[in-house]
Amino acid sequence: MAIVRYKISVEYDGTNYCGYQKQPDMPNKSVEEILENAVFELSQERVKITASGRTDAGVHASGQVVHFDLSKHFEPLRIVKGLNNYLRRQDIAVLACEIMDENFHARFSAKMRHYRYLIVNRPAPLILQKNRAMYVSATLEVEAMRAASKFLIGLHDFSSFRDSQCQALSVMKNVQKIQITKNADQILIEISATSFLHHMVRNIVGTLVWVGSGKISAEEVKNILEAKDRTKSGPNAPAFGLYFFGVDY
Amino acid sequence: MAIVRYKISVEYDGTNYCGYQKQPDMPNKSVEEILENAVFELSQERVKITASGRTDAGVHASGQVVHFDLSKHFEPLRIVKGLNNYLRRQDIAVLACEIMDENFHARFSAKMRHYRYLIVNRPAPLILQKNRAMYVSATLEVEAMRAASKFLIGLHDFSSFRDSQCQALSVMKNVQKIQITKNADQILIEISATSFLHHMVRNIVGTLVWVGSGKISAEEVKNILEAKDRTKSGPNAPAFGLYFFGVDY
Repeated sequence: MAIVRYKISVEYDGTNYCGYQKQPDMPNKSVEEILENAVFELSQERVKITASGRTDAGVHASGQVVHFDLSKHFEPLRIVKGLNNYLRRQDIAVLACEIMDENFHARFSAKMRHYRYLIVNRPAPLILQKNRAMYVSATLEVEAMRAASKFLIGLHDFSSFRDSQCQALSVMKNVQKIQITKNADQILIEISATSFLHHMVRNIVGTLVWVGSGKISAEEVKNILEAKDRTKSGPNAPAFGLYFFGVDY
Repeated sequence: MAIVRYKISVEYDGTNYCGYQKQPDMPNKSVEEILENAVFELSQERVKITASGRTDAGVHASGQVVHFDLSKHFEPLRIVKGLNNYLRRQDIAVLACEIMDENFHARFSAKMRHYRYLIVNRPAPLILQKNRAMYVSATLEVEAMRAASKFLIGLHDFSSFRDSQCQALSVMKNVQKIQITKNADQILIEISATSFLHHMVRNIVGTLVWVGSGKISAEEVKNILEAKDRTKSGPNAPAFGLYFFGVDY
């Protein structure tokens, strides 16, 4: 019996989930189990869904990519519409579907992962972007944040920006891009790398916010990176400002 | 006793309010009464707040402007922080405050009002922008929408885009700008005019969506405008895609 491999891209609001991955004994469900249930409702086949990367509780995705195999053939548009029908009471939507050959793997075929982090920098608390961005009231110096980010580009040991729970085999990560743009009170940080350590983006953002607020100099980020010591870097920025934006294959 | 006139700009998520204006016998409160209550909590003075314009239930504001008078003098930053403290369980925030002279009037001094309407154009339902944009699944031709919008620029009788409940004295309105930009699946329509008729922006958007989806030609919008007949124009686009963006004085 032939097997069909489906690649889908997924948007979710992470607020009410325990994260992408299934976790025992959590009050909130995971994105993974809800997607697997939707695939079962549509196909009557129980599948294991493989994601390009995990996201923590509260973290959003505008372009998470996952794959799964079914013995049945469905047209891609039927997958999109059918899954969205079973997801209609959830904070998850399927954006697109492609049928891939068996060599495609959502995690291992990924060449580049793109994250975005949104900060709103103003005196007033967030309303229209509540749970959608980090709120910083003190004025941030974006130029200093940009200067600091340059030290993190390239292949480095990112131990200083790694959560203690991180299970990655290597601490060496290759950061391709950190772009920081400001538009009115919105500061958007775009970060791309082949892969990331656990909490790496949020620890980098927390450290850049230290720089932007003048707590440390831009150059100090070079020392933090070289220290290979998580106690030197800034706080883990809130989950709700982070978006898993997309994956290149 | 001297009177101090305060101008504040306000952001709100219109989802859970009956609109800007107080209305009897509505289950949801109005933005107006919540703001007046917050001013009372801060100042112990009962005021009538005057807005630059009303918004309907579900319509958002990122830059509504209002004024009110107090016999007490507060520093502008104290107004911002104090009101936001009393608004902290609401979907309303005060962005900025200025002390004005008595000739300033939020409504009558307004020279230009700016609205934005957001459409998301893709096959999948909205998740991260639920209640923040209109969802259109059929592909919209933005160029045709732009061509159609040109007929509406300038001073015209906008009866075809006027709600039957509208109480405006004149149907002549001067539309200064309609700018339509597309970024990935986001279509943003920016409309500026001295003032608007009731539902005018949403009726214009509903008609432009007709054009974008090929239901009518761009040129047909000229005929609709000239017909001065509300039954000729498109449906009133959903409230939750509309933002009262700002006011020039």
